[in-house]
Formats: sequence, structure tokens, C-alpha cells
Amino acid sequence: MPDATIEKIVLIGAGNVGTHLALRFKAQGLVPLQVFSRKITKARKLGKAIGTAYCNQLESIIPDASIYILAIHDGAIGELAQKLSQYIHEKALVVHTSGATPSTVIKKHFKNYGVFYPLQTFSINRKANFNEIPICIDAPRVALRKKLEQLGKILGPKVQRVSDKERAILHVAAVFVNNFTNQFYTIADTILTKENITFELLKPLIQETARKIEKDKPEDMQTGPAIRGDQATIARHLEYLEKFPEYKKLYALVSKSIIKEHS
Amino acid sequence: MPDATIEKIVLIGAGNVGTHLALRFKAQGLVPLQVFSRKITKARKLGKAIGTAYCNQLESIIPDASIYILAIHDGAIGELAQKLSQYIHEKALVVHTSGATPSTVIKKHFKNYGVFYPLQTFSINRKANFNEIPICIDAPRVALRKKLEQLGKILGPKVQRVSDKERAILHVAAVFVNNFTNQFYTIADTILTKENITFELLKPLIQETARKIEKDKPEDMQTGPAIRGDQATIARHLEYLEKFPEYKKLYALVSKSIIKEHS
Repeated sequence: MPDATIEKIVLIGAGNVGTHLALRFKAQGLVPLQVFSRKITKARKLGKAIGTAYCNQLESIIPDASIYILAIHDGAIGELAQKLSQYIHEKALVVHTSGATPSTVIKKHFKNYGVFYPLQTFSINRKANFNEIPICIDAPRVALRKKLEQLGKILGPKVQRVSDKERAILHVAAVFVNNFTNQFYTIADTILTKENITFELLKPLIQETARKIEKDKPEDMQTGPAIRGDQATIARHLEYLEKFPEYKKLYALVSKSIIKEHS
Repeated sequence: MPDATIEKIVLIGAGNVGTHLALRFKAQGLVPLQVFSRKITKARKLGKAIGTAYCNQLESIIPDASIYILAIHDGAIGELAQKLSQYIHEKALVVHTSGATPSTVIKKHFKNYGVFYPLQTFSINRKANFNEIPICIDAPRVALRKKLEQLGKILGPKVQRVSDKERAILHVAAVFVNNFTNQFYTIADTILTKENITFELLKPLIQETARKIEKDKPEDMQTGPAIRGDQATIARHLEYLEKFPEYKKLYALVSKSIIKEHS
């Protein structure tokens, strides 16, 4: 059972992250006191899903909860924290869930601020596995960090302190392994669709590529024409990619990067 | 039980692909008559592993098998087929396992030629799941294709005819989803290692990124600063990447590609 200092949480935001946090908290027996979204339909949907109060007006937010979790767009965090400071008690612990935003955007408005960042890509229609997901927490004082650690442990076992600086770097790395990797899946799909070849053929390869680095260093798993120095194949591929000039540029640059990394 | 026309196979090459094919054939009850590798240690190791004959001299290759599978480097296929034609009977069906090489490099030396390409990334110390792996086959005549289809079905259910042209395109797409994706894992690992942050934190994200496209189109799964048009985050990331100029170039180019794909 969560202790009294963390049992009263309010969730601001009902998007991907907010929804997954709410569902997991509820499943683990800690129902947020209230959920907020600017869009009343989203607030209502999430409130009903976890059986709790909801609102879409800041003045309706419960003013004396212990922790407020801002699961909203990076660009909106600072402004919302500022507005929130007019409605809730000044000693509240206010945290955001963003990988890219420094915790200090909240500091201007609340002395008890922090970060509560689940490092995962969330989709509304996919179940999240909180037993695996790292929850990156930070706050300026030990007592606050302890609170956030306790809160994180309710979601799953992998709670870790990560500083603003470390989190910013992690976020860059996450862009490479998630956003950019997904763009390469998209490029493959675009090419194959245009050529009437089914993308299904690549799915086992995609899964195995990801699974391989669970135990081995990605560097040691590199294969293909670039690392083999197979210029004939690279030349054939670049020639084919003449019809996709932008993909050709990417092909050349990433191949160069592979060759350099392993030289 | 395989029929008589495909039961006599010789496997040329004892690398990743050759080894996995040999082990799977053996497990499915079709032990190759012989395995060949230029390196006697590799030939012996694989021969003993599947309990069959092995050699490292072309003149020792069994001359009257029905199918010869060349699981060797792309660049070596043509030359080996030429040499092989001096030692084995001219009606043998000779195929290679390469994604990047046209079947015609064998055609010059054998009228019964073809391709037997398992579309997967193989590692010596990882078990391959042949129930998932597409086996891409082709040959110039129906009877040969039937033989290769039968042979493929011994390995697993996903046997499909793929022409030289289609296979070349598939191979380009495979480079994007495997080689290039793995390079981005490597880049993330390199950055984090340099900053004393553990790469472990990214592993659940990597797995989920791959799993997401099992059911959904990768295009619809795109997230991150580029697709959101979040210039502030992109600028911060580029600034951080000043210390990795090559990664910075990649970051800018892939971000541009994401923006273009979704505009």
C-alpha cells in the first residue's frame, strides 16, 4: 500500500503517456484523485476508464493533492505550471513526464518540482509493460526523490535517478533508436509498396535485429555491405536508389558512418 | 520425407548462413551429404555437428548430388561456380543464398541454377526461427522452382518465389531495417557509453519500437520532435551533437526525411 504522502495524485493530461500512467496506477491500486485534460471528451473518457473525477478547467483542479503529474506536450509544460500555481497549494510536488524538457521549467513556479519520465514509446491501443519500462526520476531534494521513487515503484521495478543533463542525452539517443529507426522501417515500407513487394517479408528481420542487441553489443552485431567493404553491392544499391534521391543520400551517409565506426 | 530428387544436397560454406541451414536441415531429418569450407577447421566442425562428410578441396566434393547450395560471400559465388563446374555433373542444380547477387552469376556455368535466400540476419550463437523466416526462391524453370520450393518447405513454411529484380530491391530495404537500424543502436550506445549512461535503459524502447510495426504501418507509428515539428527540441539535440559531428549530420538528415515523409 502506498503511504499517505503519495496517495493523492492528480494527473494532468490524457494523451498516450497520461492514459498509460492512469491505467497502470489504477491496476496497481492507486487511483488518481482526478484527471485533467483541456478537452473534456478526453478528460471524461479517461476519468470513466479508471473510475475517478475529471475536469477540463484549471480552476476545478483539486488544490490540495500531494503530487501533480504533468503528462503534456513539452512546449506546454512551463505555461501550464505557471497557471497551475494560481490554483493549487504552493507546497505541492509538481513533476513532468518529458524526456526532452529540463525540470527547471517547473522550478520557476513550484519549489517542490521534479521529473517522472517513463522511457518508452506509448501507443493508445498497445499495452505497456511497466515491468520493463525504466522510470527516470529526479528532484532537487532527497525527500522529494524518495517520494518519486516510491511512486515509480508502484508502476514497476525499474526506477532510477537520472539528472536533467543525463535525461537530455538519453533523449537524443532515444530519438536515434526509436524515431530514426522507425523512419527506416517507413522508408523500407515505402520502397517495397511502390514496387509491389510485401513489407511482411521484412518483419522477421526487423524483430531479430532488435532482439540481437538484448544480449550483444550492437557494434558486434553489424553486418551488411558497408561493414564488409562490399563496394559492388553498395554501388548497385545507390544506383537503384536514383529514383529515391532523398533515400540515396541517407544510404550514402549511414554507410559512411558504419565504415567509419568500424575502421 | 523429402523425395528422391532433393534428398542429396551438398552445402558449400560453413559460415553463419551455411551453419544455420545445415543445423536446420539436420533437425528436419535431411542431413546434407557433405559440407565444404575452404577452412578445414570450419568444414570439420560443421560436418561433425551434423554427422556428415566434410572437405576443404573442391576435387573432393561429391560429384553427383542433386542440389548444391552455395552459402558463401557474394563476391566469391561466380568464381566458385566456375571452379565447381570442373568437378560436379553438369545437370546439378546449383543455387546461392545471397540477397544481393543475381542468379545469373551461376547461369554462366550451370544451366540448372537458382536462388535459395533465407531473408534473415544470422548469428552463430543465436538460434534461428525457421517457422518465421521467408525463404526466397527462384529458378528459370518450373521444375527447378518446384524442387527449391520443396527444399525450402523442409526448413519452414514461408517459401516464396522472389525474382532477381525483387530480391535486389528487398535487399536494399533490408539494409535500411537491419544494417542501418543497427548502426543507430550503435550510435546510441556510443553516445551513452561516452557519457557513462547505461545503454540498458534504451532496450525496452528498442524492442517496443520493433514490435509496434508487427501490426501497424511504421508510418503511423512515427513519434518524436521531427514529426511534431518541435524545433526547440531539435535545436537542443543538434547543439548537444556538436561533439559528434558525424552523428549531427545524420540527425539533421533523418529529421528532414521524417518531416518530408509526413508533410
